[in-house]
Amino acid sequence: MSADRISAQLAFLTEADRLKSIDRATTLCDASRRENSAEHSWHIALYALTMAEHASRPVNVGRVIQMLLLHDIVEIDAGDAPIHGSPDPDLQAAKEQAAADRIFGLLPADQRDAFRAIWEEFEAAETDDAIFAKSIDRVQPVIANLETGGGTWPEYNVTPEQLETRVGVKVKRGAPAIWEALKARIDRWFAENTG
Amino acid sequence: MSADRISAQLAFLTEADRLKSIDRATTLCDASRRENSAEHSWHIALYALTMAEHASRPVNVGRVIQMLLLHDIVEIDAGDAPIHGSPDPDLQAAKEQAAADRIFGLLPADQRDAFRAIWEEFEAAETDDAIFAKSIDRVQPVIANLETGGGTWPEYNVTPEQLETRVGVKVKRGAPAIWEALKARIDRWFAENTG
Ligand SMILES: [Ca+2]
Repeated sequence: MSADRISAQLAFLTEADRLKSIDRATTLCDASRRENSAEHSWHIALYALTMAEHASRPVNVGRVIQMLLLHDIVEIDAGDAPIHGSPDPDLQAAKEQAAADRIFGLLPADQRDAFRAIWEEFEAAETDDAIFAKSIDRVQPVIANLETGGGTWPEYNVTPEQLETRVGVKVKRGAPAIWEALKARIDRWFAENTG
Repeated sequence: MSADRISAQLAFLTEADRLKSIDRATTLCDASRRENSAEHSWHIALYALTMAEHASRPVNVGRVIQMLLLHDIVEIDAGDAPIHGSPDPDLQAAKEQAAADRIFGLLPADQRDAFRAIWEEFEAAETDDAIFAKSIDRVQPVIANLETGGGTWPEYNVTPEQLETRVGVKVKRGAPAIWEALKARIDRWFAENTG
């Protein structure tokens, strides 16, 4: 029935509102405050729309954007695991699975399954769309750090090697031309601020 | 050249970061603070993804989402004009055109023109995609107000008639079943809180 469907959909969308209160490690580009996961999700969807042409293999940008709109919703229950922090990966994964059960479970069954499948595809990072989506999710915080004099890098004692392993490898896999463009700016920052 | 393209795209995306600092009249669903236009844009893109089946005419949900990701970017220069406030509409429109010139102008020319065309299509509200996108943009603040005991309605002295004229007409045009579902909750609120 249409009224029941709408009320289940609105329950999901109202729950999703809480993503606006999940703070990330990264700040805004003007360093005024930490970024939240909802506005981050908007920003990387816009990144994907703007930069899809640089994907290492052709992608369906509409599907990539769907992934990016949905990818962080589990953080409402599981919290954000900073890329340069050291959470227990198994524990974090278990929390995220439970969060996906609960939050996507608010939707009508067909949409619960469809959104869950898109989220699982993103997490698995095996399809061309997911590989590009993952690379874009890694690019945006690098820009925020570069725009704010290193941002969270000093706080987490990030080394160039760590940035290459945790960020560069994933960006290069999905969008090598973008990593090449960032690398020059990153190398300059580390040359001027460390060593 | 690829490096020039990427650097123009990143200039646009870095400028877009400022949308996270544009506050709207509406608060989060827990009333903890006012919502900003970037997280609002994420939320209504998620609304569109979830509720496209209720569009009055068939829509291309990927295009609707592109519109919603881009629709508020002009507010970086022009600010948010609250739906229940009384700005000068000609002045606001002129500010938004100038903002579109400047901000989309940061992109490579082909993307500047494509993004501008999507934004103009949204503003004109004539195509099926734009009509649905506009209706979704009006639904989400109603939910935020209902979730927060009337939210901004008392502050702006909103009457049921005003809500019908400024919000209901537009929601019904693009998504009549959603307005029907909201109407019962809205009528209950006004019956209990006014008169
Ligand atoms: Ca993320």
